[in-house]
Amino acid sequence: MSFLTAARLLRTLPKSPPVSLSVARAARISLPALSRAIHATPPKPDTANALQSSNPPLSFPCLDKLEDLTRSLDGGPEPAYDRIVTGYSTFHSPSPFLCDHGGILPSISLAYETWGTLNDVKSNAILIHTGLSGSSHAKSHPLNPTPGWWETFIGPGLYIDTDKFYVICTNILGGCYGSTGPSSVDPADGEKYATRFPVLTVWDMVRAQFIMLDSMGIQKLHASVGSSMGGMQSLAAAALFPDRIDRVVSISACARSHPYSIALRHTQRQVLMSDPHWNRGFYYGGVHPHVGMKLAREIATITYRSGPEWELRFGRKRASNSSPSLCPDFLIETYLDHQGERFCQQYDANSLLYISKAMDLFDMSASAQQELLAKRVLNAPKLDFIRCHEDKSRIAQQCNLVTPRSALEPGAKHERPHLAASATPDLEDLVEGMRGIQMPALVLGVQSDILFPSWQQKEISECLKRSGNKAITYYELDSMYGHDTFLIDRVGVGSAVKGHLELAE
Amino acid sequence: MSFLTAARLLRTLPKSPPVSLSVARAARISLPALSRAIHATPPKPDTANALQSSNPPLSFPCLDKLEDLTRSLDGGPEPAYDRIVTGYSTFHSPSPFLCDHGGILPSISLAYETWGTLNDVKSNAILIHTGLSGSSHAKSHPLNPTPGWWETFIGPGLYIDTDKFYVICTNILGGCYGSTGPSSVDPADGEKYATRFPVLTVWDMVRAQFIMLDSMGIQKLHASVGSSMGGMQSLAAAALFPDRIDRVVSISACARSHPYSIALRHTQRQVLMSDPHWNRGFYYGGVHPHVGMKLAREIATITYRSGPEWELRFGRKRASNSSPSLCPDFLIETYLDHQGERFCQQYDANSLLYISKAMDLFDMSASAQQELLAKRVLNAPKLDFIRCHEDKSRIAQQCNLVTPRSALEPGAKHERPHLAASATPDLEDLVEGMRGIQMPALVLGVQSDILFPSWQQKEISECLKRSGNKAITYYELDSMYGHDTFLIDRVGVGSAVKGHLELAE
Repeated sequence: MSFLTAARLLRTLPKSPPVSLSVARAARISLPALSRAIHATPPKPDTANALQSSNPPLSFPCLDKLEDLTRSLDGGPEPAYDRIVTGYSTFHSPSPFLCDHGGILPSISLAYETWGTLNDVKSNAILIHTGLSGSSHAKSHPLNPTPGWWETFIGPGLYIDTDKFYVICTNILGGCYGSTGPSSVDPADGEKYATRFPVLTVWDMVRAQFIMLDSMGIQKLHASVGSSMGGMQSLAAAALFPDRIDRVVSISACARSHPYSIALRHTQRQVLMSDPHWNRGFYYGGVHPHVGMKLAREIATITYRSGPEWELRFGRKRASNSSPSLCPDFLIETYLDHQGERFCQQYDANSLLYISKAMDLFDMSASAQQELLAKRVLNAPKLDFIRCHEDKSRIAQQCNLVTPRSALEPGAKHERPHLAASATPDLEDLVEGMRGIQMPALVLGVQSDILFPSWQQKEISECLKRSGNKAITYYELDSMYGHDTFLIDRVGVGSAVKGHLELAE
Repeated sequence: MSFLTAARLLRTLPKSPPVSLSVARAARISLPALSRAIHATPPKPDTANALQSSNPPLSFPCLDKLEDLTRSLDGGPEPAYDRIVTGYSTFHSPSPFLCDHGGILPSISLAYETWGTLNDVKSNAILIHTGLSGSSHAKSHPLNPTPGWWETFIGPGLYIDTDKFYVICTNILGGCYGSTGPSSVDPADGEKYATRFPVLTVWDMVRAQFIMLDSMGIQKLHASVGSSMGGMQSLAAAALFPDRIDRVVSISACARSHPYSIALRHTQRQVLMSDPHWNRGFYYGGVHPHVGMKLAREIATITYRSGPEWELRFGRKRASNSSPSLCPDFLIETYLDHQGERFCQQYDANSLLYISKAMDLFDMSASAQQELLAKRVLNAPKLDFIRCHEDKSRIAQQCNLVTPRSALEPGAKHERPHLAASATPDLEDLVEGMRGIQMPALVLGVQSDILFPSWQQKEISECLKRSGNKAITYYELDSMYGHDTFLIDRVGVGSAVKGHLELAE
């Protein structure tokens, strides 16, 4: 097409300025393309039929897909989460288990996996605590060769060295990968617990793990290691059992959940619980709340990846060249969509709710621990009632599983350090609650984490220091992966852990 | 009760340790209370009926409330959002309006309010752009004495001084407070647009405002001022109409939406669109998607208040002393719940979706603007078709409302400053797209903002500087209110604005 032809074509448009050849050039439209567009796709606002809308309705492929997903999953078999992760061992404790908030589990099971060899004196065990949705499968092994969630961290000569250590990882109490949780059967009536499962705390999870360690004859851990909620557990274990842990590692965790993180988890729970298929928790055997789970996971994913990574990875890239719509069209949206969809088939909705709530409830403050202790004292007779014919001394053993009184008595054992003028009373409360943790501690945080922000890592470190602990190592990572750094930054996270675990005492 | 009586009572518990008097003391339970608890509330695990669950099911007052809310609202009249805000004037343009992505609005209306007096030469007008859900009611006046959303910022002698300036604020195109939006009636068929409303851009919103300014005879604004999405509009206006704006103010905005903010809005849209009552946008006259709106607003509220304010205001306070449950029980949760509930009756769900999407689509990069320009060129014949009997020169006027070509031609007018080695090609693209903005500019950001983080404020400022603008004022506020600082921090935000608006040229 000659320039003149093009010019003639353009004259069908209003006179310049503005729609001129120079504009077309600035817009980087080739003239033939412009010509084709004008001729081949004549605009068709319908004037013949006055009752047709000014614009066509938008289409919603994302909603079509959701409906298809629900339909396709509804007809299928009940998802068996404990079959998604395989090759684990199961510890079973037949004794009733008293939860902090007064609930009773008639018996408990914990799925666990181990790597390395326990030495003769049983002094080289490391307990790894998982995040919210983690399974016991931290590392591949012959019974399950699938890579674990900390695959490259654990192994011979690696950051958690299985040539030196006996590494144990459990699925948490309340989970759905082999441990007792809401999708387990209540032995009382043979039905799944659903929301008849008792409210859990992080302390309950740790208590269950130590009942298992007892059965393994492991009196003392070389280290308690955890990230995210695993870090909460790691700190809780050090406070509950200060004499049974040599070193503690807390990565991207906190000493108490702050309101912003509660808010973020709150919306996830509300979204999930608003799915009519959730049915107040009683969805087993019926339609599962896939849409609610998918949406909850999308929100969660945002909180896990707060770093600048998305800027580099997705930027403003579109998923396709189609016209923008209300359905996902940026690449970041389709990524979130995919993450949500994947998760809703891999995790139990009720487990998510209970564990998410346990994270909100986590508070190491002395006053909060005392409140739970008071509840335990009041509820202890429930155990007594249940096991009226059993050996009562065993009840005592379980009731003792709260932070030792001595650790909660201000200044009883350790001289209280001078509190700066800026210290709030509730920080002092937190210092008191962490006073039992006097073993060497590694506290590691990530600057781009919004869920467990670095100020919370400083809070842990500061409270430990104020409580008299002289062996704190505090690192802040300038990683681009936000909260999920602990899963991704092998070298940054791993090296700090290795250094802490292997330093001669 | 004597100590001995208490001691006898406690012997009904297992021998010490653990449940001993000292533990009871550490737990700060008074012995009478302990005694009462043990006697008056005997634990009642049911052993008589073996088929009763181990624990009672949880209750869900939050879901009961949601169901009540939906029921109570369903029977009521259609919410008339344009009656929630009253006392505004309406500008009506009878000409068809071409949207960037090709949609046509047969005519448009904008609700607007003004304060102060337009001077004889019409040189003292300030256009205030609102955030996503803002109405034209920025400030009270006789026709509507309700305090406006910037009540304490605007007024005689205040930060935006109505003794000096004629202040105009409009409800944005796409909104539901009197301007044409998805809840307006499509003149083509007399039905509400719903999701037959065309996809909007921030540029479209600005274009509509300038058609209104034309009708007012205001050729040049003293300033274009906006926060959040209003800041996007403010910058877009400066790029579209560089010769019609003397000064520009951008507060907590951005030059292009980053993937993290897209992700945050994406989840809100998905949650809303997953509410079955949303019905692909066609809920008018039926049940509105209250639950979806409530949840979307809860997520939004989190992104608006990212600062440490919640730490001070809510901390870990509980809403009641009841046992923890899966429903909201922390004070922060009931706050979010309340915010969500309030909003779902005050704003149109479809407006939220379209405007939220327009924010995602915002990108001042030269390449992005060129793409839109190309679309406008291709779609211009639609207007031609519709108004085949009208004066074609008017079409030209509307088609011209894109960033002037000269501003998009690299280095055409201004020597390109040296780009640092770290500058990415897409930053250069952004610099090119903002090259038209050469008037004095105030860029203000808030360090605790996660939705429009301070790095994005730096990006605006940096791009303007690189494009050759020598009159940039850049401030970062260390406020505790996150993104919402612009609504709250009267002195911090207001003073900077006043200084910028009133500085002699």
